[in-house]
Amino acid sequence: MRVGVVHGPNLNLLGRREPEVYGSVTLEDVEKRLAALGEELGVGLSFFQSNVEGELVDHVQEAAGSVSGFVVNAGGYTHTSVSLRDALVGVGLPFVEVHVSNVHARESFRSTSLLADMAVGVVTGFGADSYLLALRGLVSRLRGRDASM
Amino acid sequence: MRVGVVHGPNLNLLGRREPEVYGSVTLEDVEKRLAALGEELGVGLSFFQSNVEGELVDHVQEAAGSVSGFVVNAGGYTHTSVSLRDALVGVGLPFVEVHVSNVHARESFRSTSLLADMAVGVVTGFGADSYLLALRGLVSRLRGRDASM
Amino acid sequence: MRVGVVHGPNLNLLGRREPEVYGSVTLEDVEKRLAALGEELGVGLSFFQSNVEGELVDHVQEAAGSVSGFVVNAGGYTHTSVSLRDALVGVGLPFVEVHVSNVHARESFRSTSLLADMAVGVVTGFGADSYLLALRGLVSRLRGRDASM
Amino acid sequence: MRVGVVHGPNLNLLGRREPEVYGSVTLEDVEKRLAALGEELGVGLSFFQSNVEGELVDHVQEAAGSVSGFVVNAGGYTHTSVSLRDALVGVGLPFVEVHVSNVHARESFRSTSLLADMAVGVVTGFGADSYLLALRGLVSRLRGRDASM
Amino acid sequence: MRVGVVHGPNLNLLGRREPEVYGSVTLEDVEKRLAALGEELGVGLSFFQSNVEGELVDHVQEAAGSVSGFVVNAGGYTHTSVSLRDALVGVGLPFVEVHVSNVHARESFRSTSLLADMAVGVVTGFGADSYLLALRGLVSRLRGRDASM
Amino acid sequence: MRVGVVHGPNLNLLGRREPEVYGSVTLEDVEKRLAALGEELGVGLSFFQSNVEGELVDHVQEAAGSVSGFVVNAGGYTHTSVSLRDALVGVGLPFVEVHVSNVHARESFRSTSLLADMAVGVVTGFGADSYLLALRGLVSRLRGRDASM
Amino acid sequence: MRVGVVHGPNLNLLGRREPEVYGSVTLEDVEKRLAALGEELGVGLSFFQSNVEGELVDHVQEAAGSVSGFVVNAGGYTHTSVSLRDALVGVGLPFVEVHVSNVHARESFRSTSLLADMAVGVVTGFGADSYLLALRGLVSRLRGRDASM
Amino acid sequence: MRVGVVHGPNLNLLGRREPEVYGSVTLEDVEKRLAALGEELGVGLSFFQSNVEGELVDHVQEAAGSVSGFVVNAGGYTHTSVSLRDALVGVGLPFVEVHVSNVHARESFRSTSLLADMAVGVVTGFGADSYLLALRGLVSRLRGRDASM
Amino acid sequence: MRVGVVHGPNLNLLGRREPEVYGSVTLEDVEKRLAALGEELGVGLSFFQSNVEGELVDHVQEAAGSVSGFVVNAGGYTHTSVSLRDALVGVGLPFVEVHVSNVHARESFRSTSLLADMAVGVVTGFGADSYLLALRGLVSRLRGRDASM
Amino acid sequence: MRVGVVHGPNLNLLGRREPEVYGSVTLEDVEKRLAALGEELGVGLSFFQSNVEGELVDHVQEAAGSVSGFVVNAGGYTHTSVSLRDALVGVGLPFVEVHVSNVHARESFRSTSLLADMAVGVVTGFGADSYLLALRGLVSRLRGRDASM
Amino acid sequence: MRVGVVHGPNLNLLGRREPEVYGSVTLEDVEKRLAALGEELGVGLSFFQSNVEGELVDHVQEAAGSVSGFVVNAGGYTHTSVSLRDALVGVGLPFVEVHVSNVHARESFRSTSLLADMAVGVVTGFGADSYLLALRGLVSRLRGRDASM
Amino acid sequence: MRVGVVHGPNLNLLGRREPEVYGSVTLEDVEKRLAALGEELGVGLSFFQSNVEGELVDHVQEAAGSVSGFVVNAGGYTHTSVSLRDALVGVGLPFVEVHVSNVHARESFRSTSLLADMAVGVVTGFGADSYLLALRGLVSRLRGRDASM
Repeated sequence: MRVGVVHGPNLNLLGRREPEVYGSVTLEDVEKRLAALGEELGVGLSFFQSNVEGELVDHVQEAAGSVSGFVVNAGGYTHTSVSLRDALVGVGLPFVEVHVSNVHARESFRSTSLLADMAVGVVTGFGADSYLLALRGLVSRLRGRDASM
Repeated sequence: MRVGVVHGPNLNLLGRREPEVYGSVTLEDVEKRLAALGEELGVGLSFFQSNVEGELVDHVQEAAGSVSGFVVNAGGYTHTSVSLRDALVGVGLPFVEVHVSNVHARESFRSTSLLADMAVGVVTGFGADSYLLALRGLVSRLRGRDASM
Repeated sequence: MRVGVVHGPNLNLLGRREPEVYGSVTLEDVEKRLAALGEELGVGLSFFQSNVEGELVDHVQEAAGSVSGFVVNAGGYTHTSVSLRDALVGVGLPFVEVHVSNVHARESFRSTSLLADMAVGVVTGFGADSYLLALRGLVSRLRGRDASM
Repeated sequence: MRVGVVHGPNLNLLGRREPEVYGSVTLEDVEKRLAALGEELGVGLSFFQSNVEGELVDHVQEAAGSVSGFVVNAGGYTHTSVSLRDALVGVGLPFVEVHVSNVHARESFRSTSLLADMAVGVVTGFGADSYLLALRGLVSRLRGRDASM
Repeated sequence: MRVGVVHGPNLNLLGRREPEVYGSVTLEDVEKRLAALGEELGVGLSFFQSNVEGELVDHVQEAAGSVSGFVVNAGGYTHTSVSLRDALVGVGLPFVEVHVSNVHARESFRSTSLLADMAVGVVTGFGADSYLLALRGLVSRLRGRDASM
Repeated sequence: MRVGVVHGPNLNLLGRREPEVYGSVTLEDVEKRLAALGEELGVGLSFFQSNVEGELVDHVQEAAGSVSGFVVNAGGYTHTSVSLRDALVGVGLPFVEVHVSNVHARESFRSTSLLADMAVGVVTGFGADSYLLALRGLVSRLRGRDASM
Repeated sequence: MRVGVVHGPNLNLLGRREPEVYGSVTLEDVEKRLAALGEELGVGLSFFQSNVEGELVDHVQEAAGSVSGFVVNAGGYTHTSVSLRDALVGVGLPFVEVHVSNVHARESFRSTSLLADMAVGVVTGFGADSYLLALRGLVSRLRGRDASM
Repeated sequence: MRVGVVHGPNLNLLGRREPEVYGSVTLEDVEKRLAALGEELGVGLSFFQSNVEGELVDHVQEAAGSVSGFVVNAGGYTHTSVSLRDALVGVGLPFVEVHVSNVHARESFRSTSLLADMAVGVVTGFGADSYLLALRGLVSRLRGRDASM
Repeated sequence: MRVGVVHGPNLNLLGRREPEVYGSVTLEDVEKRLAALGEELGVGLSFFQSNVEGELVDHVQEAAGSVSGFVVNAGGYTHTSVSLRDALVGVGLPFVEVHVSNVHARESFRSTSLLADMAVGVVTGFGADSYLLALRGLVSRLRGRDASM
Repeated sequence: MRVGVVHGPNLNLLGRREPEVYGSVTLEDVEKRLAALGEELGVGLSFFQSNVEGELVDHVQEAAGSVSGFVVNAGGYTHTSVSLRDALVGVGLPFVEVHVSNVHARESFRSTSLLADMAVGVVTGFGADSYLLALRGLVSRLRGRDASM
Repeated sequence: MRVGVVHGPNLNLLGRREPEVYGSVTLEDVEKRLAALGEELGVGLSFFQSNVEGELVDHVQEAAGSVSGFVVNAGGYTHTSVSLRDALVGVGLPFVEVHVSNVHARESFRSTSLLADMAVGVVTGFGADSYLLALRGLVSRLRGRDASM
Repeated sequence: MRVGVVHGPNLNLLGRREPEVYGSVTLEDVEKRLAALGEELGVGLSFFQSNVEGELVDHVQEAAGSVSGFVVNAGGYTHTSVSLRDALVGVGLPFVEVHVSNVHARESFRSTSLLADMAVGVVTGFGADSYLLALRGLVSRLRGRDASM
């Protein structure tokens, strides 16, 4: 089993951008932790980051052949991208929506997600841990509903 | 360290009510799994369920003296209870909002939460696993931001 | 066949509270008439009134084992209670929404019902007669769609 | 005592149009049952159906001289016709609003009624039975508020 | 010069319907007064009333060949009829919108007019006098902007 | 009988400001025509113009002792002045709202009036003639509802 | 195969009404071109125009027995007629919504269609050609999805 | 004369919960001060606090027989409880709405009150003093409008 | 200590304007009572009334040097004046918002206040007593939070 | 004459993505059919697809020199891209908006188009045929308004 | 060439009111800097400040004869004054809207301007520099579009 | 000191696209003028233009190391790009929002900016001069608040 981890715009700045909002863990750290957890769970991982909406769409289409689901932190595109929604729905794979910060405690436009209703689930607000929780949740779902973690 | 798990209205029906929405795991099963995970994480747990909004408020006030945080599935009161919000904020403890189903894929009134902006984070859509992920996330947060899981 | 009649908040004041809005028939009178009509229709009835939202939820859950459907006048909770909606949908029994006054001719917040779209039907505005019409309608539905009355 | 029963647009198709929504009872059947109930209640009935909004207005104006009230299923005009509202209010007779289907469980534009706040009451969702319940409710109201049925 | 006076739904009831809202002057009286004023102003008048939206559209199309403008009291269609708006704009003649009652002091849906922005002007609230003022205003406009009355 | 004519902000520019919107008749011309019509109708007139909201309020309070009603063109304050509304309602005299241009054909904020629902009636869109029509309508109302003009 | 072409209010004025909006082709010309295209495609056509909403409903009900689908330009009723929507859905035949002008480039109330979500498709903005395109699209759909044109 | 003082959810935490918002005076202190003021004003007081919406409804119904009016701080139920509104209106006694904090300076959902339009008046923002001012205001009202304090 | 009492538009009419809404106490009476209470509380008072928004702004700026806070009844400007808000915030003194009538029970535009979120507190609905309560509340606040009254 | 056909995000998946929504015809098939129709109509075609919003903007700018108009299926960018709108308007060429599915029968956010009001026309819902109809409509428009097809 | 600089309510407090929002430069300083820049640009300046909306209207009308355009900081009237908008449009001179603070980063009601759509341009957020930039921009526009600065 | 000038989508067309909206100055001209002004102010400039949202994000991230602030004309992305907002906020540098046209005088969707509340200030409507004013404003801000220009 293989899971694609997709990071949207500005997540390459993680740990350096606004640490009071996003924490001080870098994207490299997050990916290391995810890799370790993947190993523990027996799941391969691939990683992709881009600031370009269409490249995220391209990636989802291309990766779809080699993964069983996605962990997606679409950053700012969460709130505006019909195209990314269409790509994720179009490839027909389960995905989990992730946010590092608590989007509900920020600007009101961050309360709207174009992905959430099509996702398996959403994890928001746990800093870098959000990714780890999302991976656990997705893998559990992929291995059978309500399976033990 | 001790965590309070709070279940709101109709969650006593879990596993029997609308299994196509909420899955077939009962509340007893959820609590067993949580207890096992609590043991693994070295955290004591207390459980409380009520269908009465004010009893949930009472409980949060009373339990606040003996726990370090809450995992809260407020069910239907998530969308309507200023009083529960006030109780959770009033006792000044971190809490995580949990939903078994993906609230974003259901009626539009379930997209509004009176708790989310005050929560550490939100976990929604993973069936009974949502509780386990929430517990992991809360404990990680209580032990220090961005700590490894 | 058995039908549960559920009265929400302030209906214990019926006949004494604002008679120009709700008429002068008391809840006891309503229940007597309902009992008489139940006998005529060959249907047993149980009655429950509470001002506490969660006790109405408790009651619906408990009564669900012994009735085939509900006649529900949720009073003020009609417009605000996701929890009662969830209980009624959760137990999977047909129910009819009833109002003594014409809610459409009053404050605008009374035009929104959290129950109506899940109900078999709605009867509003006929004073105490609303209950009788609702019982007839529910029984007819329980005995087969579009059956003669 | 005489009651006018008014059917709006497309109700001439009843029983043939979308039976999963409207049931399989035809308008002729409905009128037969209403006639039988009228006889039982000691009330004469007149029937009128038109697809033309203005003909419904004409009819309400003309029938007003010979009936004591109306049972009105205005169909699609329920949600759009100020003119029919004005006619019903203008002739100064009590009327009951009827719907065969549960309008609250359908498209959102069916939740708005231009008649309901001026009606005695509303009966919705009981299939063809809605008419019978409405007639009972109206006759009870015409014979004195809160009278026994 | 000839002006068409168009009365919409329920205006045939004028003077009999809700006199506390619409006054006690009948449509016949209004037309007599209008005729007298027309004579005084040297303008011929034609009158038309219908409760049917499409007949009002038909009439506007047909009368357009023989009049220089319209005085229109569209009644309930004022607030809902795109078709009547399209007819009035389509024939390319100036028209004045008239209301007997003060529509701004009534239900909120009466505050929206589909005709007003295309009209020369609007006269509302003067009882039967509204028609007379509208005729004066239209004739003055037809004879040259800002001409003395 | 005496009528107060009140002109709000920028109406001192009438005839010079945006003549394609407001026409080329000056305020002096309007007042001359009104005076002539007043004489014809046997009504004395007083005139007042100010660009200051509070001076309009002052004037309405003061003039109230010597007039039987007002013709009010509140200009831009029509859409924003609760204070002017309160003054007109406070002195308890009937008034007519006037607009020179057709406010419904302009910016959307001009469709909202804080005066209209408390007015006898509204005349809008007839250029300087609007004042004359308003005066006729007010005088007719002051002399008895639905009186001949 | 036979297709019903339905023209709503004011389309009898086509080519004469506001040619800068609707072009200069008359309804007769449109019908001639449609007939020619029908012949080319091997499809019989029937035509109907009315300004009366209810007559359009009547016609749809009656024509339903003899056609396989409709091309509908509902004119102003597009935006307001639940009744026409109900008729088209009620008879259970596929239909295409047509507009001569580009409704999206006009008043905002023309952006709402009560027909579009139930239609096979919509063609708007191509002048009289809109009808021809709609007929091609409908016939292609009737002969099998995604068939070559 | 006797006045009922009703405290809603979380007010039992007063003085301990979020002192920067609610001040440091406890509910016991408030009641002591109220008792002293009651003595000064010659008014008996009864006190009731509950976190349960329905118990507040129960209390209002029961206390209504022995008091002349209520001072009500409904806390979070202010913004959501139709039931409490109905109870207060149902018993037909005057009441004053009280808030310790300035609700207008907090989350936007606190700006909506389901009680205020039925209250004698509202006092908000004066910390524990709000209760004292409300009691003074209510007593003055009970003893005759505009009486000296 | 000195407090400025500021009365906005139309309050000079108090006691004469709409006594069923505002009571029969005049502004002079109110000021006498306030003076008496000021003496009792050991506080000097200054009074100012104007119907002109900008004069109220001028006054607040000028009086700021000689008072410790304001009691403000801004009348109709409460709902529309950003300028008065800016003046009160700009001078940096605490103020209390007062209304004689219960603004929540009147037109919906009176529910919006541009002052309330910046005020210490709000007192509304107690007739002339509102001023007295406001003065007590302000003085108590100026002398130390939660001080006894 | 040359026409540019522009496909937006995810249209490269056509025929494989959600065939129940988009049909089973691939983008290659669509382009073949378009080429054949282009030949029949005597029009050259160029094709471009990208998932990147800015590349679509780039393409429109570049292709503008060599085509006379565009057929545009902007996919998800239809609803969100001011930039693509600006590009199409900026190059000053006529274009037709195309959708394969009936966007009005899907999520509500698909009802908003940022292109439609600037387009010649819109064709939606005919599966792959939508492109063919759009090409016919555009070519007809390019060769003269209301020309025969 | 001469430019009128108009300061609205509370700007006489500049430099003393809320310096964290508006900076510490006084209005006198601003005017000195503007005068210096005017000299540099070869433009005469006149200055006017008032807290009274109507006096700003008066001033704009009067100054219009002697200036070629205005730099306007309408303060709180920016968001509420139709009258000032009408005055500026009425005199037909170009004007620039200025704000010292960044209105977009403050209360939401400051995001609405009744002047901006009629202005040449808007400069906001640069403290006292906003005025200088606005003057440069206006002069450049007055001397010919897109002229060098 | 160095400032980054960022041009969003379609600005490469400046001077050629819709000159009646955007003027006839090309982007090259704008950059030349900016360079001249930069020299005058002693500030180095870098320029970047892209039609791709993500490339603008990339650029802001990369340029952040070598500049002290940005002048940003985000074109169509102003109204839709959370990602660009996040990038600008993420790098923590001050920026000014620029528009060539007066966005407030155009389509309503151009009134919403996702950048403005995080900007130092906004300059809109001065044609190509907007860039020059923005640069002046930014440099003044970078050198100390309220410094002379």
